[in-house]
Amino acid sequence: MKLGSLKDKNRDGRLVVVSRDLKKYVEVSDIAPTLMYAIENWHHVETSLSTRYNQLNSGTLKDALDYDESLMSSAMPRTWLFADGSSFIYHVKLVRKARKAPLPETLQTVPLMYQGESGRFLAPTEDIPQVDFSHGTDFEGEVAVIVNDVPIGVSAESALKHIKLVVLMNDVSLRGLIPEELASGFGFFQSKPNSALSPLALTVDEFGAAWKEGRLHLPLTVNYNDKFFGIANAGEMYFHFGQLIAHAAKTRPLVAGTIIGSGTVSNEDHSKGSSCLVEKRTIEVIEKGQAETPFMKPGDSVEIFMKNEKGENLFGRIYQKVYKV
Amino acid sequence: MKLGSLKDKNRDGRLVVVSRDLKKYVEVSDIAPTLMYAIENWHHVETSLSTRYNQLNSGTLKDALDYDESLMSSAMPRTWLFADGSSFIYHVKLVRKARKAPLPETLQTVPLMYQGESGRFLAPTEDIPQVDFSHGTDFEGEVAVIVNDVPIGVSAESALKHIKLVVLMNDVSLRGLIPEELASGFGFFQSKPNSALSPLALTVDEFGAAWKEGRLHLPLTVNYNDKFFGIANAGEMYFHFGQLIAHAAKTRPLVAGTIIGSGTVSNEDHSKGSSCLVEKRTIEVIEKGQAETPFMKPGDSVEIFMKNEKGENLFGRIYQKVYKV
Repeated sequence: MKLGSLKDKNRDGRLVVVSRDLKKYVEVSDIAPTLMYAIENWHHVETSLSTRYNQLNSGTLKDALDYDESLMSSAMPRTWLFADGSSFIYHVKLVRKARKAPLPETLQTVPLMYQGESGRFLAPTEDIPQVDFSHGTDFEGEVAVIVNDVPIGVSAESALKHIKLVVLMNDVSLRGLIPEELASGFGFFQSKPNSALSPLALTVDEFGAAWKEGRLHLPLTVNYNDKFFGIANAGEMYFHFGQLIAHAAKTRPLVAGTIIGSGTVSNEDHSKGSSCLVEKRTIEVIEKGQAETPFMKPGDSVEIFMKNEKGENLFGRIYQKVYKV
Repeated sequence: MKLGSLKDKNRDGRLVVVSRDLKKYVEVSDIAPTLMYAIENWHHVETSLSTRYNQLNSGTLKDALDYDESLMSSAMPRTWLFADGSSFIYHVKLVRKARKAPLPETLQTVPLMYQGESGRFLAPTEDIPQVDFSHGTDFEGEVAVIVNDVPIGVSAESALKHIKLVVLMNDVSLRGLIPEELASGFGFFQSKPNSALSPLALTVDEFGAAWKEGRLHLPLTVNYNDKFFGIANAGEMYFHFGQLIAHAAKTRPLVAGTIIGSGTVSNEDHSKGSSCLVEKRTIEVIEKGQAETPFMKPGDSVEIFMKNEKGENLFGRIYQKVYKV
């Protein structure tokens, strides 16, 4: 099924079910008022939500309304923990090559992961505040999963069963602030402000065979200023989502609603483009000796969405411009 | 006033007001069901809560019950963002000296800060799960503040007005996992599992003159296995809380309920002891050539509390043992 959250004065939004073709939606406050409530009580609400979704798709619900992306908050407007992996290790290899830096010894054994801001996700069509031009505003197209309660020390295999929903993400990154934050050892903080999620969160049965071995094997479309920027396949993750969840849960349980990100989607085939500006700049450094693509300027836009094999838009779209605060 | 949260099946607990002498408490669900609700609606609930607190202290409330620390959750059972500073830079200097490492160039200009787990704080008397002995389980006695909504780019001076409550914290740290996580640049993750807060959160008027220039000038008592371990003064913070909040809010607004930590409390006067094992071990390395104090073993306990000049316990106490999962 497809779930979303209407913008509301309640900071957690108002849960809705959206039709498979993204044409209709219906409020479901009689089942669960918010997506956070739903994920915390998943086994109690899943069947009821699924029934409502089937009714909506069959056109039998009288209270169905026309879907309008401007009404939508991020599918999960806020959550307790967002842990972002960096699982497309081709991206890591590229960046290190450009810096002529050695690869981390544990690149293929231990996922890189940090905790990012999750107290408020920007809405999918909400513009991105840019405090300072010198910060180097960038986007990152990602896939992320939302889990219910995960026990401490879960195995990668068992972790897969806790994946209840999948979303897309624009992980906003301020590139100019990263080197100093990483050099301090304490990691990303000011360099990773509020990100945005797709308007819709999908259960994995929506993907059919494209959901396989803990990965979503579909291309992620990224357009920059309304032109092609990337269409890398999200299935090329090195660590699958079960492994990322197990890494996050090694020393703590994960609370329901935790979001685990894939890291910026990246493919070895350069004809697929990139999912963030810094990767394109890195390729330019390697191929031409210097970066040519600038970071985002006020008014620049990024669009992120994903279609299935039939060309159907799965998650709605993220479409954000940057503005000067 | 003094606020706390009763343990409850609701993950946010049930808000209570506790008397100044920690003898009585009263539920206040008619004003605010949870501390999160209260902090999100501070200007609407502050006066009513304060009136109830005065009634409780004067003994005029018929529904007052006896305070029992075993009923208490962490004052804020969970929140959206916990950003921990490292503001006792004497501690940073000590650790670097033991490692014969140079001091960070920005030590006195840019606070060190990371985002830590806040999806569930352990209760103040809940034991600490230890997954693996080799992880080197340590405690860290800290002071932390809880803010209401803070705008992006707030000044350090204006930030002070957003401090609504103060708590104590045991920031649990797994020392054996830290070197590799810091070397990766991505910072603390597995090395910082669930921490605990004090049972009570206090408004700054409770401290009288001891709250000054964004710092709490009172000694933090830390007992280890029921013996003296440290009594360092929390007023020796280099960056005050307004500066830490401004650092955190440089590129994002902070959502109401955000907790900003001081970092482990540490004084230059060694007779004051330490607030974490790793600092004592560091002093041993410098003075004796090697660390003698081991990390926590199953059954070991840590107790953290703070008294004012009159000897009155302010926040209740954190008292936790370690156990093997």
